[in-house]
Amino acid sequence: MNTASHPRSWVTSANDHADFPLQNLPFGVFSRPGFGRRGGVAIGDFILDLQTAHEISLFNGAARVAVEAASRGPLNEFFALGGSSRQALRTELLHLLDEKSLQRERLQAMGTRLLVPMADCQMHMPAQVGDYTDFYVGIHHAMNVGKLFRPDNPLLPNYKYVPIAYHGRASTLGVSGMPVRRPSGQTLKPGAAVPDFGPSKRLDYELEVGLWIGQGNEAGEPIHIGKAGEHIAGFCLLNDWSARDLQAWEYQPLGPFLSKSFATSISPWVVTAEALAPFRAAQPTRAAGDPQPLPYLLDEADQNGGALDIDLEVFLLTVQMKEQGTPPHRLALSNTLNMYWTVAQMVAHHSVNGCKLQAGDLFGTGTLSGPEPGQFGSLLETTEGGKHPIALPNGETRTFLEAGDEIILKARCHKEGEVSIGFGECRGVVLG
Amino acid sequence: MNTASHPRSWVTSANDHADFPLQNLPFGVFSRPGFGRRGGVAIGDFILDLQTAHEISLFNGAARVAVEAASRGPLNEFFALGGSSRQALRTELLHLLDEKSLQRERLQAMGTRLLVPMADCQMHMPAQVGDYTDFYVGIHHAMNVGKLFRPDNPLLPNYKYVPIAYHGRASTLGVSGMPVRRPSGQTLKPGAAVPDFGPSKRLDYELEVGLWIGQGNEAGEPIHIGKAGEHIAGFCLLNDWSARDLQAWEYQPLGPFLSKSFATSISPWVVTAEALAPFRAAQPTRAAGDPQPLPYLLDEADQNGGALDIDLEVFLLTVQMKEQGTPPHRLALSNTLNMYWTVAQMVAHHSVNGCKLQAGDLFGTGTLSGPEPGQFGSLLETTEGGKHPIALPNGETRTFLEAGDEIILKARCHKEGEVSIGFGECRGVVLG
Repeated sequence: MNTASHPRSWVTSANDHADFPLQNLPFGVFSRPGFGRRGGVAIGDFILDLQTAHEISLFNGAARVAVEAASRGPLNEFFALGGSSRQALRTELLHLLDEKSLQRERLQAMGTRLLVPMADCQMHMPAQVGDYTDFYVGIHHAMNVGKLFRPDNPLLPNYKYVPIAYHGRASTLGVSGMPVRRPSGQTLKPGAAVPDFGPSKRLDYELEVGLWIGQGNEAGEPIHIGKAGEHIAGFCLLNDWSARDLQAWEYQPLGPFLSKSFATSISPWVVTAEALAPFRAAQPTRAAGDPQPLPYLLDEADQNGGALDIDLEVFLLTVQMKEQGTPPHRLALSNTLNMYWTVAQMVAHHSVNGCKLQAGDLFGTGTLSGPEPGQFGSLLETTEGGKHPIALPNGETRTFLEAGDEIILKARCHKEGEVSIGFGECRGVVLG
Repeated sequence: MNTASHPRSWVTSANDHADFPLQNLPFGVFSRPGFGRRGGVAIGDFILDLQTAHEISLFNGAARVAVEAASRGPLNEFFALGGSSRQALRTELLHLLDEKSLQRERLQAMGTRLLVPMADCQMHMPAQVGDYTDFYVGIHHAMNVGKLFRPDNPLLPNYKYVPIAYHGRASTLGVSGMPVRRPSGQTLKPGAAVPDFGPSKRLDYELEVGLWIGQGNEAGEPIHIGKAGEHIAGFCLLNDWSARDLQAWEYQPLGPFLSKSFATSISPWVVTAEALAPFRAAQPTRAAGDPQPLPYLLDEADQNGGALDIDLEVFLLTVQMKEQGTPPHRLALSNTLNMYWTVAQMVAHHSVNGCKLQAGDLFGTGTLSGPEPGQFGSLLETTEGGKHPIALPNGETRTFLEAGDEIILKARCHKEGEVSIGFGECRGVVLG
């Protein structure tokens, strides 16, 4: 890959960094011992402390307004400023952190006051989430799950018209590292007339991408699809932990509830639309016979360049693997091109009824599986509803998650001639 | 009704007040011209300004802590203090506002600084809602709606085991008076293969009661049913506006979404468990053959006195009726005894998977219909899915809601020997 023409940073760990080169510059909220929560930008193995940057008046104009909002901790106000402020700040950061920056020596002299080793930091939720919505735009997931229940007719008639979604639980969102307690609940054993109560025996992950809403809309005023991108502050990874046995028993007629609301994990870094711009793609060609989206979901620019080409991976690390020093085992490799609907279509659909979106709202895409084995974003699909356990390289098997299992989600963008960027990790260990 | 032995207030409009006698004392957030939002207590035709009460040090001890939290506006902090603080404040308020209070003259002398005419005030959301959950505990509603889709088997097999619920949209909650814009969305005409897009033609109300969560729980730590009451801060009315045509097309497989998320209205006053204590009742006897609740939903005290006996009414006031000076037409009279699950069972179920509840979370009960015509909490039921329009006394008819229609929900508790209390109103006019 020829990326020699791309700028490099004087933060040398950023150059060729798997996730956080100069071209990424995602935003997040961090703390380190002795200091409160504040906004930061990931650069290589460091976090640029935005509170310090603001205190030393590193920025002017729109970038100054942006850094002031971002410096304080939860990024809701920063998100609410919208794209032009975020872009102004990004432009200044790109200059300051470039290896040719005239400010290099001054900034280097500030040491860890400005650039904090990531290893010393704890990450927090990037924003206070007002409402969390989970979509279902992964068409292969919808097909794979549909086949388990309706082999002849896996996709429901509304799927290719409606970007299906449901409201999720905001209070149990947490960042990577949050332990996940196995939930208890009601389950109905096959053939039983009366449900049992106890810990879930079919605990699963779901590989998703998250969208952070930036500028909101007024109630009653839908966001036009052509403007939807301006309302997205950035992206993250999302693991929609799911208790399949609870879900099967509770979900009719109003949808999943306790089977999902015990925990949802996200990666802490907000990767911006600007950083992802080189990895946009045309919406993958629909299958012959797929309907044209209704006009409120149709935008030529969105169809031509509104999809995302991001590789997504799920890894499993069991207790035994940790003890053996075995590396995590990759359960799946998928890609955001498996989304039937674009992120702009998600925003336009969510607001078309006049629903008010607010800065800091979070959308999940739904599970993003590919069509083939090795591309499935949940154990429900990989094991075909629990029928076929997975064999792990160390001889263990898994049908659903067991105590101590750690699930690690990763996302990375590759393109010839572009510097690769990543999302960082979204990790979670199952307790009990 | 003999209520002569009950205390009366020197705020004379409170005595025999339909909603707000001395025995009620609900909490809310209000503003008046020139002053910011603050906490208040309804007493007759007045609001006792809790910020003023705090400023003049009207309370001591636990009541002082409570009034300080309640004085500032959104009541989340006050809710989080829990029942003992709320009860301490209530006890002091009962003394101060009693016609025999020794402080009567001092308080009267403060005039509208302390007691603000309700007519001069605007009410606001009582708290910032973290998460909003809508249940489905009205068994007759579940039966009535189920019959439309599955005449032979209206109740799904999980109904009498699981207090069914789904996550709702918090950002579009508003208090009584919020105008309700008719949402647009996708609908599938009978027999059509492709959906249409446009304004909903089947706009409906849903008559519900709301519960405000007080003290929350830690993630992973379920609330025991015997302690559930301690986590409820109070009650209100709730109108879960619903677009039936959008709902029918979108709700499979993940539940209602845009058909509900455009608006949800609540009454602004938080009626406490203390005020409702005289109107508690035994959980209505289950039908022969109904199963015993699972142990985590079963508490003897809750079965014996955890239900609520509150009359609920829905009124319709059309534009033509307003022009004619015709009073609102009552569409339904129902009662909270139509709940299959108690509020304690709702709290215990919601948290049994470890889901974190937080002060200011709001639960809706779901539509509370009775079994008979005249007791139905939605037009979907009253018109049998739109088949039988309602004839109004002035000659108009309605199948679903039309432009300018105002829906008014009321709730009132009556019991021999007790002073009646009410919830105030939850009103909303349909725009467009």
